[in-house]
Amino acid sequence: MNPISDLVVRDPWRIIQRGYSDENNRKYESLMAIGNGHMGQRATFEEDFTGSTHSGSYMAGIYFPDKTRVGWWKNGYPEYFAKVINSTNWIGISIVLNDEPVDLNTMKIDSFERTLDMKTGILHRRFSGTLPSGEKVEVKTKRFVSMENRELGVVDYEIKILDGEGKIHIKPYLDGDIMNEDSNYEVKFWEEVKKNAGNNEAYLEIQTKKLDYHLGSAMKFSIEKNGSDLPFTGHQETAKKFIGVQANKTFEPGDVFRIQKWVANCTNRDHRVEDLEQKCHDVLAWAHSTGTEALEKTHAERWAQIWKDCDIVIEGDMDAQQAIRFNIFQLYQTYNGHDPRLNIGPKGFTGEKYGGSTYWDTEAYCLPFYMATTDQKVAHTLLVYRYKHLQKAIENAEKLGFKNGAALYPMVTMNGEECHNEWEITFEEIHRNGAIAYAIYNYVKHTQDKVYLAEYGFEVLVGIARFWAQRVHWSEAKQQYVMLGVTGPNEYENNVNNNWYTNYIAAWCMRYTLEVANYLKEEHPNEFKTLCQKLNFDFPKTEKGWMHISDHMHYPKMQDSDIYLQQEGYLDKENITVNELPVSERPLNQKWSWDRILRSPFIKQADVLQGIYFFEDHFTQEELKANFDYYEPRTVHESSLSPCIHSVLASKLGYREKAYEMFLRTSRLDLDDYNREVHEGLHITSMAGTWIALVQGFGGMRVENDRLTFRPYLPKEWKSYTFSIVFRGVRVHVTSRKDGVELSTSAPITIAVWGELIDLDGTQRTVIKSKTAV
Amino acid sequence: MNPISDLVVRDPWRIIQRGYSDENNRKYESLMAIGNGHMGQRATFEEDFTGSTHSGSYMAGIYFPDKTRVGWWKNGYPEYFAKVINSTNWIGISIVLNDEPVDLNTMKIDSFERTLDMKTGILHRRFSGTLPSGEKVEVKTKRFVSMENRELGVVDYEIKILDGEGKIHIKPYLDGDIMNEDSNYEVKFWEEVKKNAGNNEAYLEIQTKKLDYHLGSAMKFSIEKNGSDLPFTGHQETAKKFIGVQANKTFEPGDVFRIQKWVANCTNRDHRVEDLEQKCHDVLAWAHSTGTEALEKTHAERWAQIWKDCDIVIEGDMDAQQAIRFNIFQLYQTYNGHDPRLNIGPKGFTGEKYGGSTYWDTEAYCLPFYMATTDQKVAHTLLVYRYKHLQKAIENAEKLGFKNGAALYPMVTMNGEECHNEWEITFEEIHRNGAIAYAIYNYVKHTQDKVYLAEYGFEVLVGIARFWAQRVHWSEAKQQYVMLGVTGPNEYENNVNNNWYTNYIAAWCMRYTLEVANYLKEEHPNEFKTLCQKLNFDFPKTEKGWMHISDHMHYPKMQDSDIYLQQEGYLDKENITVNELPVSERPLNQKWSWDRILRSPFIKQADVLQGIYFFEDHFTQEELKANFDYYEPRTVHESSLSPCIHSVLASKLGYREKAYEMFLRTSRLDLDDYNREVHEGLHITSMAGTWIALVQGFGGMRVENDRLTFRPYLPKEWKSYTFSIVFRGVRVHVTSRKDGVELSTSAPITIAVWGELIDLDGTQRTVIKSKTAV
Repeated sequence: MNPISDLVVRDPWRIIQRGYSDENNRKYESLMAIGNGHMGQRATFEEDFTGSTHSGSYMAGIYFPDKTRVGWWKNGYPEYFAKVINSTNWIGISIVLNDEPVDLNTMKIDSFERTLDMKTGILHRRFSGTLPSGEKVEVKTKRFVSMENRELGVVDYEIKILDGEGKIHIKPYLDGDIMNEDSNYEVKFWEEVKKNAGNNEAYLEIQTKKLDYHLGSAMKFSIEKNGSDLPFTGHQETAKKFIGVQANKTFEPGDVFRIQKWVANCTNRDHRVEDLEQKCHDVLAWAHSTGTEALEKTHAERWAQIWKDCDIVIEGDMDAQQAIRFNIFQLYQTYNGHDPRLNIGPKGFTGEKYGGSTYWDTEAYCLPFYMATTDQKVAHTLLVYRYKHLQKAIENAEKLGFKNGAALYPMVTMNGEECHNEWEITFEEIHRNGAIAYAIYNYVKHTQDKVYLAEYGFEVLVGIARFWAQRVHWSEAKQQYVMLGVTGPNEYENNVNNNWYTNYIAAWCMRYTLEVANYLKEEHPNEFKTLCQKLNFDFPKTEKGWMHISDHMHYPKMQDSDIYLQQEGYLDKENITVNELPVSERPLNQKWSWDRILRSPFIKQADVLQGIYFFEDHFTQEELKANFDYYEPRTVHESSLSPCIHSVLASKLGYREKAYEMFLRTSRLDLDDYNREVHEGLHITSMAGTWIALVQGFGGMRVENDRLTFRPYLPKEWKSYTFSIVFRGVRVHVTSRKDGVELSTSAPITIAVWGELIDLDGTQRTVIKSKTAV
Repeated sequence: MNPISDLVVRDPWRIIQRGYSDENNRKYESLMAIGNGHMGQRATFEEDFTGSTHSGSYMAGIYFPDKTRVGWWKNGYPEYFAKVINSTNWIGISIVLNDEPVDLNTMKIDSFERTLDMKTGILHRRFSGTLPSGEKVEVKTKRFVSMENRELGVVDYEIKILDGEGKIHIKPYLDGDIMNEDSNYEVKFWEEVKKNAGNNEAYLEIQTKKLDYHLGSAMKFSIEKNGSDLPFTGHQETAKKFIGVQANKTFEPGDVFRIQKWVANCTNRDHRVEDLEQKCHDVLAWAHSTGTEALEKTHAERWAQIWKDCDIVIEGDMDAQQAIRFNIFQLYQTYNGHDPRLNIGPKGFTGEKYGGSTYWDTEAYCLPFYMATTDQKVAHTLLVYRYKHLQKAIENAEKLGFKNGAALYPMVTMNGEECHNEWEITFEEIHRNGAIAYAIYNYVKHTQDKVYLAEYGFEVLVGIARFWAQRVHWSEAKQQYVMLGVTGPNEYENNVNNNWYTNYIAAWCMRYTLEVANYLKEEHPNEFKTLCQKLNFDFPKTEKGWMHISDHMHYPKMQDSDIYLQQEGYLDKENITVNELPVSERPLNQKWSWDRILRSPFIKQADVLQGIYFFEDHFTQEELKANFDYYEPRTVHESSLSPCIHSVLASKLGYREKAYEMFLRTSRLDLDDYNREVHEGLHITSMAGTWIALVQGFGGMRVENDRLTFRPYLPKEWKSYTFSIVFRGVRVHVTSRKDGVELSTSAPITIAVWGELIDLDGTQRTVIKSKTAV
């Protein structure tokens, strides 16, 4: 076999690995993970495998409050760290030829190809090779988790005997005796409830040791030999939390065995515990009667619908085309809004880091993506998720000494409670509160769903604004309000004073909440009165206090310039830029001790620039330029959330090369494994940033003056790109070409392109020539 | 039985607990812990006990590199946390009457008294009560770890039958199947090597799972009944890492059984592994032939010698008298300089918190105590300990990016390597480096042992000064050198910029190192040349660089005042003082979340004031007053190391009530269990602070102009106090009374009292009347 490249094969619709190497296996397990929002799993192998693997299979919302691990306890730390947990491995099909298991780790491999087909959402694999005992085989597999029936998973496994004869044991199984790789104290989280098996089926039910989650998994399987049904006697095999059914047959050269395995995974999040087994069997009965081919077809149709709405087509750049689809595909695999109790874990179903919990990534990065690509209900659902956590956020703030309904949303959460335990993050990276308020503003701006403010938004805003008002204090030295001891979005500075971004968003939150209060008072007077009573909200008095803070907030700024200072002490840092850093010192988070990073001027991710991005209409182009020119050379982009924001701003400044460089960096972060960490899982939430960089950056999409607007330009490396936006029920397709932009919409709408209003009638394509040659 | 007070009974020489309560048991186990520098243990019970206890027995220098526990790993963290480990429980004597064990937890207790006799270093206990099965007994015990032969421990146990008859089982044992309460992953650190037993003796040898420490423990015992030797047949009882020998006899009312148990604990730190068993038997043979009474006598004589030199007598204040002796006693139990590989763990042999490792407490607090109370060699030994760790300190600095021989001593260490893992401490509480340099300066000032500088001191100073020179950088904004991201002595601020104390001691270190270089160049030219070569030390060039830094260091200061700012942002904090804090909010470290503490103005322990204390001759009385008046009202003294420094400075300022209040707070911190944490162990290192508060504060002891000087005053609550100081081989006894001071010395010496030179001839007592009525 030829030496294996660890590079993903380029293809517009597929992620392809050609040739197997143990070293890269975990990386591809992450890259080709499949999911349907309800469940998901890494792209591991069905047959036995003794090589390097992280066999991870996850059920959305099934988590465990793992005992917190901390070296030195700080008052206020949470008792547990919630993590979405590895669940029953349901794909397993053990195949043994003459007592030798088919195992890629022990075989001599002749060929290997693993492919994720993003168009249809199906994971394929084929390989051939020779077992240590001499049998030659060729295997082809397909697997998907249905987008039609989210509780259903299907494995279609075919093994052809190229050489050898003797006995074959085929054993599909369900294995619940798994553990999390990131278990803090190497504890297993599941206990067996029950199991049973028939001739070609089995059921396993397990239960978490805490929180009483139940997962029932039922499998049914058939075996064909050379195209015909193969009758067999299933022998039950059991172990702790394990059940399998084994068929024993003989084989000879040329025989082809096809195993179809249908699995239902049902949990007590969706059903009563006592109904789980029956629900599983119902799903399987339906699946079995429908048949694998039909199941595959409806599954692919669901994906086709998503692509019809959300696809982005890039002509002239295969790298970018593959990347943007990969990002969109992974986002929709992870979350599609069908279950309001769920949110978007930073690694989705692809790994365990960050515990599958909710971060401010959702509001800052993911919301704009879902808001503009799918039904407005999904964005509404994401917002209501936080509304439902408001009481917990108030309790969280109370633990930190706040009162009177001040709310601090957690940095990391599963059910509204804080899970993170680094004081500089947990207690101090409080700007997350601002992103949650900003998301409400952003949603209303996009949708004009102002009813949301009365129903949900105002309560959240008041809790957040109250937090800010208590978190600042009057500095006698400055004769201004200051906010001490915070960590901004740039986590390479901790516990700083007067982080510009945090101060800015805090003051904005107070003003915006007052603006909403005024709106409600005028437009929804009855609801407003009820809300004031419920929240004990004294409008005039509160307004006076908040406006005083907002008007006298301290914003550190460089003298005689437009540059806002990331924090008060930034100018005391060494005045050096990233290009003065030897490559050998990068990434800093692997090469430098933490204190050195903290006192260096180097920035992990957009911080002042994140604020200018959020509130772009508050700043002139000159201010944007001054700050971008100052901060971009000092930013190391060691967060996956960083390059996308810089890309959008660079586009706005006409820094097209920089914008394109940053776009590529965000879009192929995982595919090209820049940081050598994809084996741990994908950066799901930052994938929304890729979409932002393209649509808001290159496409210049905004909502301005209550209108959808575009200022598209074409990166010089591309021939064209096409994306679509849903805006207040109308879908707008935009194709940007060298000489102009082509628009079509699903209904009549007036939009702005390069500042000019264009009326679209909902039927015709409209072409607008760009005024300046691009 | 009457309700039990949890207060220590007042007594000038003894710590007494009267009446038993399970709730307070761990507290008294800590308070009455005994040790002899080689080994020590908590004051647990010999007989079986099923109540609340922390059975801790520790061998000095026997530690384990426990796997670090950390929630979120930071680059640069150490792989292990060293901890002195719980070792063989060698005191155990199980006594069973008619199958019912004597166990205070199950008995009806009629009387109970536990007493630590500090004069003789012996732990006593007596109790009487009724077993659940009805037998009435009275027990008297004595126990000590010999100061004559440090490997020997003796238990003298007497049980009298008040009522009942039947069978008695007496089983002295050695139990090595123990674990640390603070084991990070509940791992046991010991494995059995061998064990054996004879009729009245047994041997158990265990070995640590890492680092290969061996501990051999041998016991020998005798039983007397009603004053006569009782012959018995010893039945061996074994379990994993456990061996005991049981004697079975009968008893009737009035019988008195006395069990004498001698134990030798020898380790391969002092002997070859293959010799351990024989060494233990040698110790026991000697002990047995000497006899318990004679062993007790020589042990007490050793303590009498320590008291002769180090006692402080306070007339008119029993609380203070008991407290000061308690502090001195615990210090000498913990460390007495006999083994240069050892240092002073913050909790000595009384608990497991802080792992028994070395902190800057040694240099800043303990060194002055040992330097002035005992042979100068002990202080020399403490200094050489750090010299031996210099190479590790250089490696430690290299891990953090420093070079060219810059040394950063660890925050917490057992063998010179860093063990601590909180970034804000490990990487940033770097002022510890300054304390190690200051200790050299302090030692030379006290002893005039300038040879130390050539032999050891200069190398350490150069390493430390190099660290500071690299740690600062030039701020363009300030046009001064700044030091960003540090934690000062006040750990209630983390990651601050330009902590005044750290900047000040850093600049001083550089200047002092240059001063020493000049001295060596003049007085020890050959050694200096060799040192320059060894250290690659270019004197002229280095001098220029360090003086530039030292002359242009930024020292934050309040405008138009003498007040130095703890750190650059201090004035942005709320301007409130401790008396504005409700009592219910104290202690802050239990009531407030960490971020709230950090951004509050409240100070855990002396910070700016620590610097003014160290370098008092650099500051005027007015400056001292301004800073004390500003910082003392903002200091919550939630570190055991804080009140002593404030007490000394208050004495200097004539704030006598404050000085006395602070003295009481430090001296009775553990006896009165201010912070409800004595169950975890005692604050050994801060006990030296108590001595400092009395001798330097009330006694005004200094070395000035190369002379021992005093400026004593008498706290108004006292009739007199007496202490003694060793100064360059001469012992000076000082008694301060209302009307003046009485001095006597062991040899002729000229000292200064209240600024006047006094010649003492070494034989006569000299009385000096105070000039101002006190």
